[in-house]
Amino acid sequence: MTYGIIGTGGIGGFYGGILAKSGCDVHFLFHSEYEAAMEHGLIVNSCWGDFTINPINAYNSTSTMPKCDVVLVAIKTTAQNRLADMLKPILKPDSTVVLIQNGLNMEKNLAALLPESVAIAGGMAYICVSRIAPAVIHHQDLGELTIGMHRGSDEKAKELCRQLKCGGVKVAEICSDLNAHRWKKLLWNIPYNGLTVILKSTTDRLMNNEASAKLIYDIMLEIISGAKACGVEIPISIADNLVEMTRHMKPYKTSMRLDYDNKRPMEIEYMYSEPIKEADAHGFIMAKTQVLEQQLKFIQNGYL
Amino acid sequence: MTYGIIGTGGIGGFYGGILAKSGCDVHFLFHSEYEAAMEHGLIVNSCWGDFTINPINAYNSTSTMPKCDVVLVAIKTTAQNRLADMLKPILKPDSTVVLIQNGLNMEKNLAALLPESVAIAGGMAYICVSRIAPAVIHHQDLGELTIGMHRGSDEKAKELCRQLKCGGVKVAEICSDLNAHRWKKLLWNIPYNGLTVILKSTTDRLMNNEASAKLIYDIMLEIISGAKACGVEIPISIADNLVEMTRHMKPYKTSMRLDYDNKRPMEIEYMYSEPIKEADAHGFIMAKTQVLEQQLKFIQNGYL
Repeated sequence: MTYGIIGTGGIGGFYGGILAKSGCDVHFLFHSEYEAAMEHGLIVNSCWGDFTINPINAYNSTSTMPKCDVVLVAIKTTAQNRLADMLKPILKPDSTVVLIQNGLNMEKNLAALLPESVAIAGGMAYICVSRIAPAVIHHQDLGELTIGMHRGSDEKAKELCRQLKCGGVKVAEICSDLNAHRWKKLLWNIPYNGLTVILKSTTDRLMNNEASAKLIYDIMLEIISGAKACGVEIPISIADNLVEMTRHMKPYKTSMRLDYDNKRPMEIEYMYSEPIKEADAHGFIMAKTQVLEQQLKFIQNGYL
Repeated sequence: MTYGIIGTGGIGGFYGGILAKSGCDVHFLFHSEYEAAMEHGLIVNSCWGDFTINPINAYNSTSTMPKCDVVLVAIKTTAQNRLADMLKPILKPDSTVVLIQNGLNMEKNLAALLPESVAIAGGMAYICVSRIAPAVIHHQDLGELTIGMHRGSDEKAKELCRQLKCGGVKVAEICSDLNAHRWKKLLWNIPYNGLTVILKSTTDRLMNNEASAKLIYDIMLEIISGAKACGVEIPISIADNLVEMTRHMKPYKTSMRLDYDNKRPMEIEYMYSEPIKEADAHGFIMAKTQVLEQQLKFIQNGYL
């Protein structure tokens, strides 16, 4: 199988790197870091052991890439409106596209733009990994990947999981309910991403203040209600566990806070607007999440 | 009649100054600006004509003030827990206390701490006035004062209104429903005060951004629902008018934003927590207002 990695940042570089290291045929799309990748390859500093992919099949446009059986998409959803066009040159009629992104409805929106025969899946990565220099990534902790099919056969996704496990990823598996997993990831992402930007803070400071800790929990309860309206049951114990986990995490700048600090667009649309619209369409108003969404849009408008 | 002004800032200085200028017996409580008041009197730069009260009956403690028939309270509600003790030395059995403050339930909470015979009222000032230097205030625009009785006779409040009108205040009147007027003032105060602090902004920037303008309106609609639950009908047209008015105002830093900029405590309790509690007690959850309340508490905790 041929693998394409669309967006070789922390997530794309890590999973793509694992595949390449274990001998798969992997092709990496870079943007501004293409030169660095050509120069020294992809350097992965990992808590599981450092490795480098050099030489590397690096590209700066999908138009020069080979067609791929499996495409891992790990770009920010802020570039989602360009994604279908980016993918077209590298898709076979029976390719599988896995969107390892945060938010809701990315798969549905992409599916409308790609041929029916292309299988589309979502990937939920539970991992602490970040790009620390051009084509250099730092994997700090975890690595679990859960894949859920949006449409099509899960045959290639299963093979992907098998290869990732060969490469050292302890948990890489197919789940039966993509939507439920997407909502569960939002349970953490919505309060922590938004509030670290709006309140210019980090996870530890948010947890150490009574008011913001309560706000985070209240927002989680609202997300649980929104998910329920959309047919997804999330036990409250999951919110309790996430809060406890975050309380014991090292001070952490969320991905949205890093986007904000670096004056990049924030993933407001898929992380906030889509869940709000989805719940609304099922009769539930996510009032608190709307406040965060509107505040984030105001903040982003101030620097973009 | 003898007047006491508790808190000679913008509001207290203006209305007290008007009374003193028109010959009333007015006694002003100062805090850190007592020395300045003794030195140059109270200077009022007003769009209606500048004037100075010099010499002035200035005090730095209520313990040295005479007993007063009417007491205008114009301190921030952040000092509310000390108010009853401050008032006791200057109250007669039949004094009238007028709380010219923003928020909800200040009168009810104070009433529980003062003798039954003391009349208690709330005052809603519609005025642009601020303290620009020690014992120097700047009156930019408006000046309307509406007073509503919480308990007791409105006799002295009527006399206060008569005197204010003699002094040049065009509208100074008694209303029959204090609670309704308090809620109507919250309609502006809750969204603009909170968001200018949380989003580090001014009224004009909030109105010029689509997301924040929508957020402000959504919060207003929530306040209207909260008020309705508490038995107060506010027509939506009032929200429309407030939004239009603010859109055409000069860029304005709210009082809460000034408190934040000067690292003073913010009026979160009476402006947010009390309305939220009151609506909650009547079966309505002010979800968006709760988000603002919790965000403000987090922010205040960062500098107090």
